[in-house]
Amino acid sequence: MLEQETMIPPFTKGNAGITELLEYLHEIEDLEALSSLAEWDQNTEMPEGAGEVRGYQSATLQGVLHERWTNQRLGTLLNKLNAVINGSGYTDADRGLVREAQRNYDRAMKLPRKLVEEMARVQASSFEAWRRAREHNDFASFAPWLGRTVALQREVADHIGYTETRYDALLDFFEPGMTTSAVDKLFTPVREVSTTLLRRIEASGVIVDDSCLQGEFSEEKQVALSDVLLRRMGYDFSHGGIAVSPHPFTTSFGSPFDVRLTVHPDMHFIQSSVMAAIHEGGHAVYEQGSAPTLVRTPLAGGASMGVHESQSRLWENAIGRSEAYWKGQFAAVQQAFPEHFVAIDAATFARALNKVKPDLIRIEADEVTYNLHIIVRYELEKAMINGDLAIESLPGQWNAMYQEYLGIEPTSNSEGVLQDIHWSSGFGYFPSYTLGNLYSAQIYSALRQHYSNFDERLAGGDTAFILGWLRKNIYAFGAIYQPDALMKRVTGEVPNPAFFTRYLTGKFEAIYQLQ
Amino acid sequence: MLEQETMIPPFTKGNAGITELLEYLHEIEDLEALSSLAEWDQNTEMPEGAGEVRGYQSATLQGVLHERWTNQRLGTLLNKLNAVINGSGYTDADRGLVREAQRNYDRAMKLPRKLVEEMARVQASSFEAWRRAREHNDFASFAPWLGRTVALQREVADHIGYTETRYDALLDFFEPGMTTSAVDKLFTPVREVSTTLLRRIEASGVIVDDSCLQGEFSEEKQVALSDVLLRRMGYDFSHGGIAVSPHPFTTSFGSPFDVRLTVHPDMHFIQSSVMAAIHEGGHAVYEQGSAPTLVRTPLAGGASMGVHESQSRLWENAIGRSEAYWKGQFAAVQQAFPEHFVAIDAATFARALNKVKPDLIRIEADEVTYNLHIIVRYELEKAMINGDLAIESLPGQWNAMYQEYLGIEPTSNSEGVLQDIHWSSGFGYFPSYTLGNLYSAQIYSALRQHYSNFDERLAGGDTAFILGWLRKNIYAFGAIYQPDALMKRVTGEVPNPAFFTRYLTGKFEAIYQLQ
Repeated sequence: MLEQETMIPPFTKGNAGITELLEYLHEIEDLEALSSLAEWDQNTEMPEGAGEVRGYQSATLQGVLHERWTNQRLGTLLNKLNAVINGSGYTDADRGLVREAQRNYDRAMKLPRKLVEEMARVQASSFEAWRRAREHNDFASFAPWLGRTVALQREVADHIGYTETRYDALLDFFEPGMTTSAVDKLFTPVREVSTTLLRRIEASGVIVDDSCLQGEFSEEKQVALSDVLLRRMGYDFSHGGIAVSPHPFTTSFGSPFDVRLTVHPDMHFIQSSVMAAIHEGGHAVYEQGSAPTLVRTPLAGGASMGVHESQSRLWENAIGRSEAYWKGQFAAVQQAFPEHFVAIDAATFARALNKVKPDLIRIEADEVTYNLHIIVRYELEKAMINGDLAIESLPGQWNAMYQEYLGIEPTSNSEGVLQDIHWSSGFGYFPSYTLGNLYSAQIYSALRQHYSNFDERLAGGDTAFILGWLRKNIYAFGAIYQPDALMKRVTGEVPNPAFFTRYLTGKFEAIYQLQ
Repeated sequence: MLEQETMIPPFTKGNAGITELLEYLHEIEDLEALSSLAEWDQNTEMPEGAGEVRGYQSATLQGVLHERWTNQRLGTLLNKLNAVINGSGYTDADRGLVREAQRNYDRAMKLPRKLVEEMARVQASSFEAWRRAREHNDFASFAPWLGRTVALQREVADHIGYTETRYDALLDFFEPGMTTSAVDKLFTPVREVSTTLLRRIEASGVIVDDSCLQGEFSEEKQVALSDVLLRRMGYDFSHGGIAVSPHPFTTSFGSPFDVRLTVHPDMHFIQSSVMAAIHEGGHAVYEQGSAPTLVRTPLAGGASMGVHESQSRLWENAIGRSEAYWKGQFAAVQQAFPEHFVAIDAATFARALNKVKPDLIRIEADEVTYNLHIIVRYELEKAMINGDLAIESLPGQWNAMYQEYLGIEPTSNSEGVLQDIHWSSGFGYFPSYTLGNLYSAQIYSALRQHYSNFDERLAGGDTAFILGWLRKNIYAFGAIYQPDALMKRVTGEVPNPAFFTRYLTGKFEAIYQLQ
């Protein structure tokens, strides 16, 4: 990890303003890390009866953070720094630091502390309500919480402000500078390529056999297999760890030094935990790859949630669903479940992981249908936030859109509108996944261009060269550069959906032998 | 839990001062809970490479807490309340609240924030150093951290102030009002009864056979057995949970709603996890028994660490090492390890748990030698704090005292001076265990007097009547009453070591058929 330090522009040493800002932000980030820890605990270990008291704790901490982010001392310091930061004598890291601090300051200044605290309180209870509702297929018990979350998020958007739609204000939080109309424009070709490909695949008559992924797989052994796959990806367990939670996720408490992830094994379908491990592993190696000098600053971690998802999806799909990758890694799967996989080879396994079939569960979706799952959620959350969809109509609308986009319909809300954790806390995240897929294809193209023998190395079990390139070109920089600037540095151009449509079409024309 | 509320004096409603104090303390306790969560995580799940960054996080949070505890607004409010609190119109809960707030305020006002932050930082790294040192039997690598902790704790004592010795200032933190000379006086008869009994037992020639406790016991099954025993004790898993850690402990993040504990199974000796579960369970049911109205105040939880240990030791020893208890609970042990225990009965198992044998490990010690382990630690930490013992002499001194008090000597520092977690964070806690044993015997005597059919009910598998009595008389009150006042309410007199010497002598004269 240490060698990265020399590759990124360091913070300017000996500059009083930068030093003061760093000290100020260090403490804020320490508290942000503890806030993430409280959430991690709530998702992994917290007893069900502690939701209310945890809500108070989170609210108090959010209040303290709000106090820090809106402190006049910070405002004055940022004013001074902004006046000089674009001059010589400052590095890109300095500029990124000031920019991120300003973004947080501006946002916090617009939000009343009471609202921030109430959101934290509601979020804790809402999470518990969602967990129970999903377990008991009981949307009605979750609906009031969802209603409160929608109302609070609308209030947030009104405080933050927006030009076109309320939803813009939420989107910007996860993807700086992104607007609803820009997302609509980027998603149009994605929807088109997905539905077209799906039609061609269904018409082809080709069936991919994924029976080798089904069977009996103990939770314990699946977690152990995740461990092996993550280790081989370069995930560093001395700065990380795995837990089990109802919904897989990655979080960090001081990147790059403490980055953890969860999986959620399905006892009858090995694909879930394997692909979740690689997906979360992608997030995790990104966080672990931040230059150590960025620790305890808002620059440690990802450039945006879209860029973050580009890394999870890059590892999960472009790499983790390729035949070359499994040629190099399949032995670990066979060792974990020898009886089950004795007669299966890497190519069969990899092919099974690419079976295209409209299904109900987003995180298990193939690459062709995945973005349709996202577009459904994006359209629905946009409508909720913009006031065009009432909570009680949500399950019906969800099912109708699944019918329209994927030709299937959930038979339970647990498999439908309740499947994802996201709406227990807020809105505006879902587009990150599809943005991630777009960025991912573009980065993957640059990566392959760099290594002429990419597939050979991958098939030989080497993934370190990929991680090395990603760390050097992306991970080490954390959030120093914003998404568009980063994409230009890495790929030579701003995000362009053509990379994704080409990638997806090429890959699935080959698998399904389409003309 | 709710019915307890009516039994304790509630906080006065509608009183502006009490309301303001409660609101102020609620936020402090929320942050204290997050501080405990950070420690829990560090002990159970945190990756080894995260110690340094966690140290910064804890330090920052301690700084925020210090800021809150030393806030002028709190000082002014306490001044106003202290002027009226002993008049009519205030309840014991109000008085307890003001007293505890004042105690914390006074202490915080005496400590510089920088020192508090440094302690937190050192503690996180020191814990990691201790864990590694114990694993590798490498005292030398822990010694510098211990040295820093001693220096910091001496500095704390100097800031706090004391009449006789520095150690008094630390002791008072865990046991309000307790002094070194009072501890010396209470411990003298304990040491005497322990050494006398030990001599008589060794001279008796009677051997208690504990071979039934040895064998092969999987970690997983031991944790599952702990789960069953805890459930039957009345520990509420909807407000709790078990984890595994290098040293068993109990902590809470908002008593009574989130109280968790750890065990540390020994694969070859079932006694460790069974007795640790009941011991930690005692702490945990105490915390879970606080009246819900006390939540988010410094009154939720125990009256002192000595009273806390009285409950862990009461459940562990007076109850959990009795034949009557195991007549009611042994079936759970047999179900967990059927092959091993098929031919063993409850009486044999209970008798094995009472084998008296000088051993190296404190938490596995029998009741006769246990307090000698404590007295060794107490004498050593007192000497370190008072400047009479250098760190480099500690292992030798430890071993010499084990030879003197217990007639045995550790062959490794891991089994010697490195065995306990405590010195990685501070000093002054160890006397709590022996104070706990004294209080425990006195409370146990009152409890047995109350129920003439105590043993019959216990042997019938009932422990709910014990928990009910303890909750009603002790647990519900949290820290409303200080130790001496509480002991008087519950037992009719202040702490008196005669209860313990009588209990111990009676119990072991019977087991070892002494004249």
